Amino acid sequence: MGLRIAMEMKMDIAALQAFLVRDFPQAAGDFEFVAVAPPFVTMALIASDKHLRPGGTVSGPSMFGLADVCAYFCILAALGPVALAVTTNCSIDFMRKPLAGRLLCRMELLKLGRALAVCEGRIFSDAAPDKIVARASLTYSIPPNS
Amino acid sequence: MGLRIAMEMKMDIAALQAFLVRDFPQAAGDFEFVAVAPPFVTMALIASDKHLRPGGTVSGPSMFGLADVCAYFCILAALGPVALAVTTNCSIDFMRKPLAGRLLCRMELLKLGRALAVCEGRIFSDAAPDKIVARASLTYSIPPNS
Amino acid sequence: MGLRIAMEMKMDIAALQAFLVRDFPQAAGDFEFVAVAPPFVTMALIASDKHLRPGGTVSGPSMFGLADVCAYFCILAALGPVALAVTTNCSIDFMRKPLAGRLLCRMELLKLGRALAVCEGRIFSDAAPDKIVARASLTYSIPPNS
Amino acid sequence: MGLRIAMEMKMDIAALQAFLVRDFPQAAGDFEFVAVAPPFVTMALIASDKHLRPGGTVSGPSMFGLADVCAYFCILAALGPVALAVTTNCSIDFMRKPLAGRLLCRMELLKLGRALAVCEGRIFSDAAPDKIVARASLTYSIPPNS
Repeated sequence: MGLRIAMEMKMDIAALQAFLVRDFPQAAGDFEFVAVAPPFVTMALIASDKHLRPGGTVSGPSMFGLADVCAYFCILAALGPVALAVTTNCSIDFMRKPLAGRLLCRMELLKLGRALAVCEGRIFSDAAPDKIVARASLTYSIPPNS
Repeated sequence: MGLRIAMEMKMDIAALQAFLVRDFPQAAGDFEFVAVAPPFVTMALIASDKHLRPGGTVSGPSMFGLADVCAYFCILAALGPVALAVTTNCSIDFMRKPLAGRLLCRMELLKLGRALAVCEGRIFSDAAPDKIVARASLTYSIPPNS
Repeated sequence: MGLRIAMEMKMDIAALQAFLVRDFPQAAGDFEFVAVAPPFVTMALIASDKHLRPGGTVSGPSMFGLADVCAYFCILAALGPVALAVTTNCSIDFMRKPLAGRLLCRMELLKLGRALAVCEGRIFSDAAPDKIVARASLTYSIPPNS
Repeated sequence: MGLRIAMEMKMDIAALQAFLVRDFPQAAGDFEFVAVAPPFVTMALIASDKHLRPGGTVSGPSMFGLADVCAYFCILAALGPVALAVTTNCSIDFMRKPLAGRLLCRMELLKLGRALAVCEGRIFSDAAPDKIVARASLTYSIPPNS
């Protein structure tokens, strides 16, 4: 899409990790940061039994959760440590069953407006990055005075 | 939307409950059937710590999971006990924070085609059914020879 | 979904019609108001050659346009004659081919917040109101100081 | 997303142009092919008065139409000249007002399955390719025996 202009990074992985523990206390152990380079953030799902469906495939809600968390930190990485942004919309397409092993989500911040932020990303297995498992777009509402 | 034509009910609550345990073994205890009357199915989320965010509000992935399960059983109630249908798309809007207490999802089957089924539903707190917490539309792919 | 609380109507059909001509000058002749009773607005598409695909079926963009206009006036009917709201998201599912004749959209305002409004509606042929042709959900951004 | 595996091109621009005229007779003059290299197809909207809103900005339905046509030809370029595929779902986010001048859509085919194809793309002004105007994801149903 032509030149991609790098955004300033307002929070690094260590700072984001502290927010992951603070804002998602029950789920913090399920995720890890792989790469943070605004407008992109890549995170991994550390899948355990609770994330799986019969046959060993990662469940839809687990993939939704991965996309949602990854979008949240995509916004924080560019915006800085602000009051809580909240998801207002998500559209997700499930396309293939993930392979066994680590599941990654690479999310891109497409718009960081005054009131809304829009992200778009893809979920794929670490072992087959060119086979997209799911795609998702998410809108977050940014609280005033952030 | 004019006359709503009742669909035949192919599975009752007891039959659907057996499939809930079979197809969602890790999550079966999180949900209960409230009403089954095709094209409508209403289910409740039995929220526990794992479903909550800081402040005690139900998380987005938990609401996604409720909508997804409810759509699945909306299809099975009308189609009968078939080979696994899989979610291909979900669009969900989060509009208000849920109140404390039971969270319900009332899902409607809008189309049951040869290859695709489309559902649309709303999530609301038992204590305030006119304040919609979230809305979701989901598409399921129906395997051939179902 | 339980009791539906009627919203106050801030603009009637005559007032909305004046805004249709003002805000959609090229398309005003394509639409007519059928019923306005907040949170519901029903509009019809007056289909002409430009709206049709081979075979005489109404095109996807024409149905998108009908849903978009209907949501816009759903918001204005409840909010009053304000500065321009703009569409930020639409998710639309096309389920059946419309029949010949008038195509209607019945839209419901689900949330009218400070910054965002969310609508959900269904498109159907006048001749078969129980066969849903398409469903759509739309988010509008409401400008500050509206 | 790692290596992008090139798809075989089943139809070139001349062949696609013939289908544009056949399948979209009323709208064929509104669009032109810019680049065809499966899984990518880029098309331009030749905006005229009918595509504009007050202020000279391209309307939402016109951008929806551009995304929809571009996805259709993204599928045909990879699949070949088959029986008509039909749009079943579209999720579109409008993020910025387009600049004056040519509006482009670059669409990518993410999945070409037996029954469904999924595309994702971005709309941007020719003069500012790094400022995304809109993003869209679309699902098409592929008829059996294609």
